Amino acid sequence: MTEKKQSSNVVWHQATVDRKMRETLNGHKGAILWFTGLSGSGKSTLAHAVEDALHGLGARTYVLDGDNIRHGLCGDLGFSDAARVENIRRIGEVSKLFLEAGTIALTAFISPFRADRDRVRGLVEDGDFFEIYCKCDLAVCEERDVKGLYKKARSGEIPEFTGISSPYEAPENAEIVVDTAQQTLDECVAAVLAVLREKGVIQAA
Amino acid sequence: MTEKKQSSNVVWHQATVDRKMRETLNGHKGAILWFTGLSGSGKSTLAHAVEDALHGLGARTYVLDGDNIRHGLCGDLGFSDAARVENIRRIGEVSKLFLEAGTIALTAFISPFRADRDRVRGLVEDGDFFEIYCKCDLAVCEERDVKGLYKKARSGEIPEFTGISSPYEAPENAEIVVDTAQQTLDECVAAVLAVLREKGVIQAA
Repeated sequence: MTEKKQSSNVVWHQATVDRKMRETLNGHKGAILWFTGLSGSGKSTLAHAVEDALHGLGARTYVLDGDNIRHGLCGDLGFSDAARVENIRRIGEVSKLFLEAGTIALTAFISPFRADRDRVRGLVEDGDFFEIYCKCDLAVCEERDVKGLYKKARSGEIPEFTGISSPYEAPENAEIVVDTAQQTLDECVAAVLAVLREKGVIQAA
Repeated sequence: MTEKKQSSNVVWHQATVDRKMRETLNGHKGAILWFTGLSGSGKSTLAHAVEDALHGLGARTYVLDGDNIRHGLCGDLGFSDAARVENIRRIGEVSKLFLEAGTIALTAFISPFRADRDRVRGLVEDGDFFEIYCKCDLAVCEERDVKGLYKKARSGEIPEFTGISSPYEAPENAEIVVDTAQQTLDECVAAVLAVLREKGVIQAA
């Protein structure tokens, strides 16, 4: 930090802690882990389990999901097409801020449209964005129906519900695919961590 | 992390890394340092200098300012009254996310209206929010006019410019007041750090 005597003609020196410096302090790289999949496919659970594992390794992490976004940053948005696009846009921009802060940001939203996910990918550099497809048959998600949403969607109480009355566009080039109907949670977590090690986000064990 | 064999009838265990766990890992508390003051009062420079000092102490920090917010998260907002309120609202919500992530979030926006700042304060618990008033005479800010904005405001090229054609509501109960026209940058940084130590955000030196 450089000090300059303040006067009306002197501009203070601008100190800047950058992403690289934060990553050095943290001992790992920043990244965006973007979990996508149907309602009930286990996105949020997996994101939190991956965070738990990363935190256990000393990494700086944060999960963005419905719990902390819907009533806060995106509390003004409804469920129109435009609102859904804006919702994902804002989440993408916030993920980017966490990335620049040297954090591993994990997001858990259905994010059904390829274009919306690709727009977030386009905000950051190659290697910063990991699309994680939580693959799970609709029948399995609907049978689970943990929140009772599929029942409401089938009855028409919830309109435009992904998988029922609105499309889910599966990723075509996801960095990671897990099958949450077939794999255990630990297997899915291990699959994600293996890729993060391989790509140098975290150090090899 | 608890593993449960996945089946359509079993809900995966939900792991949760919370703020307290992140703060323990970081060795300091999360906080929001909200710098407010006229254009040219040194908010952004001081915020970055405080970040630099905190980073040097090993703290996890992130500065939100015009550079990373205006073209990103708030790139859709204009300068109407409603847009300005929404701008500060979103910045407040993002600061809260960084706070929950165990980070010291520093924000550097004019944020001229008391009601907008108080709304952000109300989002978090007592002791999480530090309003830092960068006090500086309008005449000094205008004489500096680093970005040439005051000249444009006086000529009417920029309408509703804070201090010229739109009011600045100075904080009445700011946690920290610095006089950037009278104090050196290092003095201002030291004043902020002293309060953070006193309030237990960072450890005493």
